[in-house]
Amino acid sequence: MSERCSCGIGLIGGGVVGGGVVELLLRRKELLARRTGIELELLAVADIDRERVAALGVPENRIVSDYRRLFDNPEIRIVVELIGGVGVAAEAVLASLDAGRRVVTANKALLANRGREIFSRARGNGVGVAFEAAVAGGIPLIASIRDGLIVNRTQSLLGIVNGTCNYILSQMAASGRSFADCLAEAQRLGFAEADPSADIDGLDSGHKLALLSALAFETWVDFPALHIEGIRGIKDDDIRITRDLGYTLKLLAIARPEHPPETVGEDGKGGDEAGGRLFLSVHPALLRNGDPLAGVSGSLNAVRTVGDAVRESMFYGRGAGRYPTASAVVSDIAMTASSLIFGDGYRGWLPPERNAYEPAPMDDYRTRYYLRFAVRDRPGVLGNIATALGSHRVSIAAAHQFENDHPDGFASVCIFSHLAREGDIRASLAEIGGMDFLRDKPVLIRIED
Amino acid sequence: MSERCSCGIGLIGGGVVGGGVVELLLRRKELLARRTGIELELLAVADIDRERVAALGVPENRIVSDYRRLFDNPEIRIVVELIGGVGVAAEAVLASLDAGRRVVTANKALLANRGREIFSRARGNGVGVAFEAAVAGGIPLIASIRDGLIVNRTQSLLGIVNGTCNYILSQMAASGRSFADCLAEAQRLGFAEADPSADIDGLDSGHKLALLSALAFETWVDFPALHIEGIRGIKDDDIRITRDLGYTLKLLAIARPEHPPETVGEDGKGGDEAGGRLFLSVHPALLRNGDPLAGVSGSLNAVRTVGDAVRESMFYGRGAGRYPTASAVVSDIAMTASSLIFGDGYRGWLPPERNAYEPAPMDDYRTRYYLRFAVRDRPGVLGNIATALGSHRVSIAAAHQFENDHPDGFASVCIFSHLAREGDIRASLAEIGGMDFLRDKPVLIRIED
Repeated sequence: MSERCSCGIGLIGGGVVGGGVVELLLRRKELLARRTGIELELLAVADIDRERVAALGVPENRIVSDYRRLFDNPEIRIVVELIGGVGVAAEAVLASLDAGRRVVTANKALLANRGREIFSRARGNGVGVAFEAAVAGGIPLIASIRDGLIVNRTQSLLGIVNGTCNYILSQMAASGRSFADCLAEAQRLGFAEADPSADIDGLDSGHKLALLSALAFETWVDFPALHIEGIRGIKDDDIRITRDLGYTLKLLAIARPEHPPETVGEDGKGGDEAGGRLFLSVHPALLRNGDPLAGVSGSLNAVRTVGDAVRESMFYGRGAGRYPTASAVVSDIAMTASSLIFGDGYRGWLPPERNAYEPAPMDDYRTRYYLRFAVRDRPGVLGNIATALGSHRVSIAAAHQFENDHPDGFASVCIFSHLAREGDIRASLAEIGGMDFLRDKPVLIRIED
Repeated sequence: MSERCSCGIGLIGGGVVGGGVVELLLRRKELLARRTGIELELLAVADIDRERVAALGVPENRIVSDYRRLFDNPEIRIVVELIGGVGVAAEAVLASLDAGRRVVTANKALLANRGREIFSRARGNGVGVAFEAAVAGGIPLIASIRDGLIVNRTQSLLGIVNGTCNYILSQMAASGRSFADCLAEAQRLGFAEADPSADIDGLDSGHKLALLSALAFETWVDFPALHIEGIRGIKDDDIRITRDLGYTLKLLAIARPEHPPETVGEDGKGGDEAGGRLFLSVHPALLRNGDPLAGVSGSLNAVRTVGDAVRESMFYGRGAGRYPTASAVVSDIAMTASSLIFGDGYRGWLPPERNAYEPAPMDDYRTRYYLRFAVRDRPGVLGNIATALGSHRVSIAAAHQFENDHPDGFASVCIFSHLAREGDIRASLAEIGGMDFLRDKPVLIRIED
């Protein structure tokens, strides 16, 4: 470790995360050099706001307004894109790859929408794209799934990957207050943006799920076709009722093959093949208390995978924030520099050109369901609902009718189903929806246990 | 990915884990080639029991009895040591390094006792040693701490790293039965060995803690000097009492600097330095229910770290077993082959020659303490205990005296202290130990909350 090499870094975007990366690279130069054997030199930062970059301690002559200037310096071998969004960021990443630069990015929206094109361009140019920070911020999840679990065929993946939603749902459960109240509080405390829709409508979770699908199932999803439900319609009633029955409501990103690969066993099972149809969905779901994911509260993130050799793993930590995200970006920079300096190190990025799985429609999804009906309190109602469910092959595991829980004479009927096909559930709901005792649209929440 | 390179592997030891590695390498040849771009060829397996290796599907001409024969084949570039123990395994690993082979091992005892020497030999020969499977089996913990969190100075590390102990403690809590009963059950079910002492006396956890200290704190411990307490003396009484008060008892591996590095913040704090004295200890400890580690039950493992940039992370999964451990070994093989084939990829392994921290004595440990005294039920006892604690600067957070819980006229006095210095606690216990109302040696369990 006595001789040190150096590797030049160019960074685009000096905002919240970019600023954190600049700070860590400058303050931790010696630590990183000791641990990697490489001096990571921040040679240029591109940002339209030069002053905020200068305030971080970057010398004036290393600040540029136009990212294209980075390519003038041949010593910049790694370009870090932290602009966000899909427009300029896409141009900057593609231009960097075409200029033969290794790219590090935290941009989940970009990779979810244009990942295939970007990775294909990287392959064509013989360079890599690292994106540890794009999913679950500071948690080293990408490397764990891609490298640590490399020999596994994934059987399922379940994740809490949006801190804003998890904060709001945790607050609703703890305080009994409404979605609107808890959202307003989250905004006041900085856990939700002024325009929270990308978070609470599930889009951000969807971006992350697309990337996790590519890694864990070697399957790119057509992003606009992804099934996404957010938490805007979640009622405090349902959180209270299900909590009293031992469940916790979370917004989950879920990937699950229709026919999961077999578990490796001494019976010789567990070969090489994986494929068929893949369910990919973001939706609010009930977890049993005691499930490790149910205990992940506040703005924390966690992802649980089941691999056919390793069985269950869970990765837990901060999914966002200036320094946790910057920590992941700097890890990517260090690993990329390490492979650049000490060898080519290029490995084909997953997935290959051909998808392992094809998409499965949600109608064929099978899980347990929680249904709630606000009904006029009169004889025969529970019987009508149960009969409609039964005629569509939906079997009831538990039913609760709560009296007096609506001041206007309506009662709540809650049904916990056995394992059922979602198409059958929807057909029953359509039938029950036509019955005259029903006050509101029925509530449907999936149980993932 | 159309042209594939190949990389030859030699494996020493075809037992439980070794057999799992053989199976995965043979069954998953195509999957691994697709994901890494390399054909991983198992060229030889060394085992004194040739038949058990042949039964795994390894051709006769690839089985040898003496591991030294592996070095005759220049195409074997990676040697996988899965013998276990410190004797022959040390010889085999050092011989492999001297023969210029990359080494993959799952041997925690070897690395905890002789890691410094082995890594120094690896550096001298310009090759690497990978050991993902040595700590927490299938959980990609080593790579996460070493690479994913590379820019962090670790503030604390807390782990449940022995599945046998965790299984026994979970069963004691769930069933109320004694340690001896639950150990016997664990042995019957295969969760504990016939001679369970390395697990239940904490030695195995100590081995893993030594490796985690080297990675997370850049500090090698002198293994025989490590503070280790096992779970043999844990009484079901204490599990019951503390459970009713909201705590869960776990065997923890703990590493914590006396003065943890400051958290990175916009105040400019969080520089490069780390050092001072480091507490390293394996001991049974109480966690508050709701702490994610408290929910890790059965034979599962989990490690929680706090980094000064990333804050808390937790890694959770199977810590042992044929295929989970083999999954980690195969990941190491794949990553090592990848760096060999696509570039040298050698990075200096942590820690450097000089330790970052020096050992801190347990007398200076500061945490909260649970103390239980079996006392004669007579006036003044609680006062005497409280006064003795107070005179040694131990402040009481909660005290409970339970009546009638011993049929022979003794009562239990349980004290939950505020933050206290362990030396002060021990001095108070020495003083109280001389009082005539005491029936048994007082129980001391640390609270890590």
